[in-house]
Amino acid sequence: MNFVLPVRVYYQDTDAGGVVFHSSYIDFMERARSEWLRSLGFSNCGLVRDHQVFFMVRALEITYFKPAVLDDLLEVGVEIESMGRSQMVFRQDIMRDALMLASAKISLVCATTDTLKPVRVPGAIRSKLEI
Amino acid sequence: MNFVLPVRVYYQDTDAGGVVFHSSYIDFMERARSEWLRSLGFSNCGLVRDHQVFFMVRALEITYFKPAVLDDLLEVGVEIESMGRSQMVFRQDIMRDALMLASAKISLVCATTDTLKPVRVPGAIRSKLEI
Amino acid sequence: MNFVLPVRVYYQDTDAGGVVFHSSYIDFMERARSEWLRSLGFSNCGLVRDHQVFFMVRALEITYFKPAVLDDLLEVGVEIESMGRSQMVFRQDIMRDALMLASAKISLVCATTDTLKPVRVPGAIRSKLEI
Amino acid sequence: MNFVLPVRVYYQDTDAGGVVFHSSYIDFMERARSEWLRSLGFSNCGLVRDHQVFFMVRALEITYFKPAVLDDLLEVGVEIESMGRSQMVFRQDIMRDALMLASAKISLVCATTDTLKPVRVPGAIRSKLEI
Repeated sequence: MNFVLPVRVYYQDTDAGGVVFHSSYIDFMERARSEWLRSLGFSNCGLVRDHQVFFMVRALEITYFKPAVLDDLLEVGVEIESMGRSQMVFRQDIMRDALMLASAKISLVCATTDTLKPVRVPGAIRSKLEI
Repeated sequence: MNFVLPVRVYYQDTDAGGVVFHSSYIDFMERARSEWLRSLGFSNCGLVRDHQVFFMVRALEITYFKPAVLDDLLEVGVEIESMGRSQMVFRQDIMRDALMLASAKISLVCATTDTLKPVRVPGAIRSKLEI
Repeated sequence: MNFVLPVRVYYQDTDAGGVVFHSSYIDFMERARSEWLRSLGFSNCGLVRDHQVFFMVRALEITYFKPAVLDDLLEVGVEIESMGRSQMVFRQDIMRDALMLASAKISLVCATTDTLKPVRVPGAIRSKLEI
Repeated sequence: MNFVLPVRVYYQDTDAGGVVFHSSYIDFMERARSEWLRSLGFSNCGLVRDHQVFFMVRALEITYFKPAVLDDLLEVGVEIESMGRSQMVFRQDIMRDALMLASAKISLVCATTDTLKPVRVPGAIRSKLEI
């Protein structure tokens, strides 16, 4: 993976089944995408302020292989699989040591903050990603 | 209590300790205040659209007496304790049958959506509450 | 859909983009599956107590068509698409009036509470579903 | 504060008011208490495994001074205010640069995992805290 964010599991991420709740993995992935964006020199607020856009999740597929549990230190990966005019597709894996716990494919669309309509990914981001 | 919202407990509200996570009770209370507002003929969106205001939590105190668990059907109460120019103080209890599980006092301030500054509670709400 | 749960959108479900956060839809779907189970005469706690099993999400695919926003009253549907020895596949749609906002396919596996290993779906549930 | 955990604000922590949702601050504080515990050589899982106890929130008071927003890098502090036989009281502040955004007093009780009854804080933790 191009970028990896370490994420610790707390009580707030778990459920009474004793494992991490299934939508918490998706939240961990949002954190990792945000930090990946920051690692490229951008931020969610910056996109809104400078370009009046933000990335909305259009679709996601996730497979859970093994449960994460309280106190786990997870590695949440980010990798771009493809990039279109207004859409970006990410592959995101969650690992604990060498074990893959979950793997997702997440499609986001760049949308304007006012109308929520899809628009071209800003050139500044595009050029950074194509290098 | 003036208004009571029934709330069911799901896995998403619990943690690996086998009980409802402590901040979930506070989320249940937000749901109840919103429905209480709706029962008076208002809504969060309506306040933003018609009055450019929303209610922000300024302070809260909560005491937990007994844990709620998965599948519980809770009753989340709402009662106004006092009302100032821009501030409202609520008492909110969470009951399961005749047992009080948690009780909170929550202070909210009416703020403008643009500057987040405190403003007078809209007259329409005020008159409804004073009847 | 075989079963529909009405779900109201509160501030807690939304994000600073002004829409419902993408993982909140998945939480709404968990609520609906739990109520569907209850409508058949079962409950999450009952499965644990009587059968020492619970349902874990194995995989999910979701597509977001239109954003839900604050105060929306959503209809969260539940329909069984297929059922294997230990696995159940659900189709779950989220509608607002006649508009489909999101649609998901969610695979769950029946697992023992102690080892988290897949086991046969309890006969009591199976016979209820096959009627 | 004795211990400070940096916490970044993501979309998942915010609401449609454009600020961090009020119960998210309480979640940030749980993360910080867990990391403070870890910094002393303990963990939530270790307490359950080695001592059959965990800490439950008994009461909390929080005051919100200024809103945190998307992309903020917060500092979430942890300080023990007092310690009884089975109870610990924490002071937790959330700062952004030199500005205090929220401050809380949180009482936790050490409870057994089976009956949820209060018990003496394990000697190993107690001696670590009294040094």
